[in-house]
Amino acid sequence: MQAFMDKDFLLTTETARQLYHNAAAACPIIDYHCHINPREIYEDRRYENITQVWLGGDHYKWRLMRCAGVPEKYITGDADDLEKFRAWARVLGKAVGNPLYHWSHLELQRYFDYHGLLNADTADQVWAHVNAKLQQEGFSVRGLIRQSNVELICTTDDPVDSLIWHQKIKADKTFATAVLPAWRPDKAMNLEKETYLPYLAELSSVSGIAIRSFADLKAALQARMAFFHENGCRLSDHALRYAMYAPATAAEVEAIFARRLSGDAITQEDELRFKTAFLTFVAGEYRRLGWVMQLHYGCRRDNNPAMFDLLGPDTGYDCIDTHTPSAQLAALLGALDAAGSLPKTVLYSLNPNDDAAIDSVCGCFQNGEAVGRLQHGSAWWFNDHLQGMTQQLTSLANLGYLAGFVGMLTDSRSFLSYPRHEYFRRILCRVLGQWVEEGQFPADMATLTGIVRDVSYGNAKRYFSFPS
Amino acid sequence: MQAFMDKDFLLTTETARQLYHNAAAACPIIDYHCHINPREIYEDRRYENITQVWLGGDHYKWRLMRCAGVPEKYITGDADDLEKFRAWARVLGKAVGNPLYHWSHLELQRYFDYHGLLNADTADQVWAHVNAKLQQEGFSVRGLIRQSNVELICTTDDPVDSLIWHQKIKADKTFATAVLPAWRPDKAMNLEKETYLPYLAELSSVSGIAIRSFADLKAALQARMAFFHENGCRLSDHALRYAMYAPATAAEVEAIFARRLSGDAITQEDELRFKTAFLTFVAGEYRRLGWVMQLHYGCRRDNNPAMFDLLGPDTGYDCIDTHTPSAQLAALLGALDAAGSLPKTVLYSLNPNDDAAIDSVCGCFQNGEAVGRLQHGSAWWFNDHLQGMTQQLTSLANLGYLAGFVGMLTDSRSFLSYPRHEYFRRILCRVLGQWVEEGQFPADMATLTGIVRDVSYGNAKRYFSFPS
Amino acid sequence: MQAFMDKDFLLTTETARQLYHNAAAACPIIDYHCHINPREIYEDRRYENITQVWLGGDHYKWRLMRCAGVPEKYITGDADDLEKFRAWARVLGKAVGNPLYHWSHLELQRYFDYHGLLNADTADQVWAHVNAKLQQEGFSVRGLIRQSNVELICTTDDPVDSLIWHQKIKADKTFATAVLPAWRPDKAMNLEKETYLPYLAELSSVSGIAIRSFADLKAALQARMAFFHENGCRLSDHALRYAMYAPATAAEVEAIFARRLSGDAITQEDELRFKTAFLTFVAGEYRRLGWVMQLHYGCRRDNNPAMFDLLGPDTGYDCIDTHTPSAQLAALLGALDAAGSLPKTVLYSLNPNDDAAIDSVCGCFQNGEAVGRLQHGSAWWFNDHLQGMTQQLTSLANLGYLAGFVGMLTDSRSFLSYPRHEYFRRILCRVLGQWVEEGQFPADMATLTGIVRDVSYGNAKRYFSFPS
Repeated sequence: MQAFMDKDFLLTTETARQLYHNAAAACPIIDYHCHINPREIYEDRRYENITQVWLGGDHYKWRLMRCAGVPEKYITGDADDLEKFRAWARVLGKAVGNPLYHWSHLELQRYFDYHGLLNADTADQVWAHVNAKLQQEGFSVRGLIRQSNVELICTTDDPVDSLIWHQKIKADKTFATAVLPAWRPDKAMNLEKETYLPYLAELSSVSGIAIRSFADLKAALQARMAFFHENGCRLSDHALRYAMYAPATAAEVEAIFARRLSGDAITQEDELRFKTAFLTFVAGEYRRLGWVMQLHYGCRRDNNPAMFDLLGPDTGYDCIDTHTPSAQLAALLGALDAAGSLPKTVLYSLNPNDDAAIDSVCGCFQNGEAVGRLQHGSAWWFNDHLQGMTQQLTSLANLGYLAGFVGMLTDSRSFLSYPRHEYFRRILCRVLGQWVEEGQFPADMATLTGIVRDVSYGNAKRYFSFPS
Repeated sequence: MQAFMDKDFLLTTETARQLYHNAAAACPIIDYHCHINPREIYEDRRYENITQVWLGGDHYKWRLMRCAGVPEKYITGDADDLEKFRAWARVLGKAVGNPLYHWSHLELQRYFDYHGLLNADTADQVWAHVNAKLQQEGFSVRGLIRQSNVELICTTDDPVDSLIWHQKIKADKTFATAVLPAWRPDKAMNLEKETYLPYLAELSSVSGIAIRSFADLKAALQARMAFFHENGCRLSDHALRYAMYAPATAAEVEAIFARRLSGDAITQEDELRFKTAFLTFVAGEYRRLGWVMQLHYGCRRDNNPAMFDLLGPDTGYDCIDTHTPSAQLAALLGALDAAGSLPKTVLYSLNPNDDAAIDSVCGCFQNGEAVGRLQHGSAWWFNDHLQGMTQQLTSLANLGYLAGFVGMLTDSRSFLSYPRHEYFRRILCRVLGQWVEEGQFPADMATLTGIVRDVSYGNAKRYFSFPS
Repeated sequence: MQAFMDKDFLLTTETARQLYHNAAAACPIIDYHCHINPREIYEDRRYENITQVWLGGDHYKWRLMRCAGVPEKYITGDADDLEKFRAWARVLGKAVGNPLYHWSHLELQRYFDYHGLLNADTADQVWAHVNAKLQQEGFSVRGLIRQSNVELICTTDDPVDSLIWHQKIKADKTFATAVLPAWRPDKAMNLEKETYLPYLAELSSVSGIAIRSFADLKAALQARMAFFHENGCRLSDHALRYAMYAPATAAEVEAIFARRLSGDAITQEDELRFKTAFLTFVAGEYRRLGWVMQLHYGCRRDNNPAMFDLLGPDTGYDCIDTHTPSAQLAALLGALDAAGSLPKTVLYSLNPNDDAAIDSVCGCFQNGEAVGRLQHGSAWWFNDHLQGMTQQLTSLANLGYLAGFVGMLTDSRSFLSYPRHEYFRRILCRVLGQWVEEGQFPADMATLTGIVRDVSYGNAKRYFSFPS
């Protein structure tokens, strides 16, 4: 029996152990997609206690607590921080098989040098131990990032964002980690939302371009993309229900947009046509600018109306949408490619059944422009666990070129979540080690070490055209 | 090599063996969903031979025999019981990898103390051995239930059922196992069926409420739910093609119902609207009464027209329907919850690709009302095997709180099928043992034992509000 | 650690090793579905170098090279054969986890007695070694087939094909392997294609029946089926986006066909209706003739418009189509069966999520006509790897009768691909061995040996009514 989460955690073969300890562990982190607040980096925020760090905004943990029947008072309610931590510890202690069990204990080990268990019995002891550490030097936001060997971070930013915090961080030469914006224009695309017209007004104001047509919207977005580019942005990101393809003429799209501006209702078909046109336009711009396009899809959001009214979005009420038609994804990418508008692209589906379909679609658009021009993104959100990552890596290896994979990202709101890169790397080495152990790949450590370093770090470094 | 199906069957680690033998094995069975006939319990039916028990109504076995090319004569036809048994034994002997291989041998071991193989060579010997046992004391229906340590059984009953056999069983103090009805109003909901109007007439008659409107139907159902409740019913069950959400106004629903009453054709869209309204109504009633709602979906039934004409429903001609949109499931539950009408609910899909989607949907409606207020039901029917159960448990653990799972049910028509609980518990312990063995969860036997007992028995005991 | 791809490759248990070496290895190959060119067999083509054999037309390898960023020049372009081979070797050397890694090394071992690695370092050495072998006796097309112990091959042929090469091969008594045509009438069915009318003209000419109605088309197809039957054809094959069921009256189908003949546009619904009628007709003919029907579906083809213009179809630009509704598949087969028109049928979906659905649909149409009258075809194309085959075998075993499975086919364009049968057989023995090792099936080597021989060879021999 292997000891619980020791240094060889998840590394079931000698090959895996060698690859992880000798090749993966020392690689810096390029965290090219996350949701942290750059202001907290600039201001170098500190935390009073572990509840602030762990339970302040982590809807993964909130969901698990609700699954275990914890009243909302102890989750997002008015219970005090220690009570909330005790509730969390009680749930976590029995959360066998849940990735939060591993993530939480990795964080306790790596940042707080606590190697015991967290559960109902140990809650108060851990509370005291961790909170004392949090007061020490090196446990501010920047300290945590430095400890984690993070070379570069991309945040997730709206086109209207001033990027003021990114600029301040860049100007501060005492902090070595690059913190770059990433472009997420969902609000400019989602014309079905009630808040669309006020958002356009804001975008008009920020860009200095009055938006009276789709052509104007495109011009305003171009202006903001130029601004983002100047500020180091090299990645975009879209959140879609699914990757749609509903082509329309330019005149039809202008007409749809005009109807929306005038306050008229938009049909679902018109929504899909507009979004197809929007994506087609921005994809072409991404390609022109040398940006990478990320598409996140397969998610139905805000499924609990009462809790949405209470807590708003991103509070643990989203689910997998199984309607993720690969045919439309292929048609969309095919149309972009035919128009010379397909940028380097990373595809993430929340539907775990999509692994092979995504790999097969990627294969249709690969070429000499890049190793892995099209990428099957790392197992995302509800799939971000041992089984999901193992399946993503295996599918990618079966249908594509695993050695060219750009690897892991945290997708996180927390500054303690960098060990998820460690988790990923251990799983990568575990999978490779099992193949070698069974004689499915030669024990050629030079080749394997190269692959592990590339997937952990080198491929992301090469794939994204980050400013140096 | 592990010996064939010995006491450590499926228990690949020492942790698994300890958990199963010390914690799981002794737990009583709460079989909260099955299709057995309560009359056979009351009358304490006996069997002449193993063919009657095994092949009399088990469409799982029939299907396997047909797959192996056995003529229908030896399945549901006029061959004699020994011939049928020989045909079954011949097929089973080569049914490597099929769960029936395990279920059948578990039944031979547990009930008949036969630890050899069943195949073409041993058929006659097993026939004699088992039939002799069946004549002994303790091999009547009640004897089999007693041997199996069954604390409680829920049957599956139509709203028009008199529940006379449940009442008789309850009145008979010599039988300790509780046998409760469960409410399955499919016939009252499926207005597209030819038999709908005759069914409504029957429901009118039984309830004493003339059904001339949807309001009347609701009143009639309420009357029958009150009757079921008095008779100990605390669970409902629905069989759906998929969990649909097609909202309509009360007036629209009445109009649809009126058209159906008048004999007019109903469109598919109207069918979905009516069913949404029906589910919405009964769900609210379930919540009011403290009942649990079970939704079984993802099944297309009666796919072989010729055999349906010959044998009727539930004879082995159903298949998985892969159209199981998670978005509509989430919308339905969201609407119920927003209306304060969402009861505790167990979701079962026949589509094995739905595990993660179901877990992610459940997470959107969890709260302090119960541990696991929404439940991802145990791997059902075509998924009820080692791989399917392992995947369901793993997905539930990854995305939810496995420790709160209400666990296994037989879903069976046979009084010999209680070892499926043993099968499930072995798989549960196997999965937990593998995690511990690999250092993914601490070897904390107190916590693990608690989880195993809860999932095997305690959670069902707590979750369902059975009358005591 | 097991040595890399030695004689016990993939055989992780003693049972697996015994089964493979004692039962599977010696079985002849019945390759009942592939895409090789019969002319190359008749003319006994020889190869100058390994690039001709491996990279001349293998879109699997082309895709992998593109995934790795290799410019098209070195794939289908004008680089010389050695440059192309070096590019391939460089990519393959790092293609960990890809089935091409295994297939390629199996081919190097079995045909060329090369047991080292192929990668950037060894490319030139392998080039010299293999090319020298290719000049030897026994390395012509017929030599390769003979070396591979192939008893029978079915090619894939259009109804207008003259079958001249099949006839010539049959007449040549020096070659023992049977080479039979298989009927693939896609071009006669796909009325949405621009090339449909010219194709009908060709079919009219070849059949001698002027096609002015759907009735004429049916007569022309009947004439060609009779011709194919005389020439030994006993299998048909269809490539579908999905298995559809859109019933229409005979008059409606004639009207649709008339509109197409007149050059009018056809709606998508009409296309589905016509195809349903087409399939219904030919299925009935297959049944009458004793042919097996193969349905390959779940593929969206030619997704890259620019590369399609450059290279045409079957060049590595196809993807999985996840829209594969099991309900329509069940409805189609149910209608055929009800009409007495359902032949023995093999179902292959490119959507890897379909395994259980297919097995559950097959189960609805099994009967005494054959062991496994309906077959779940071996893991196809993007699923043709260790995981995909393991899943297909496991699903089939869980929901059907694995012992009746007709097993593997190459689906290949290459005369070096027969080791894929070895790959499949090793995986079959591996899966069985793991079950035995864990005590899930008895170590009854006689039964297991019989199953392995049947799945490797005997079932295909019995299932297909090949002329003797």
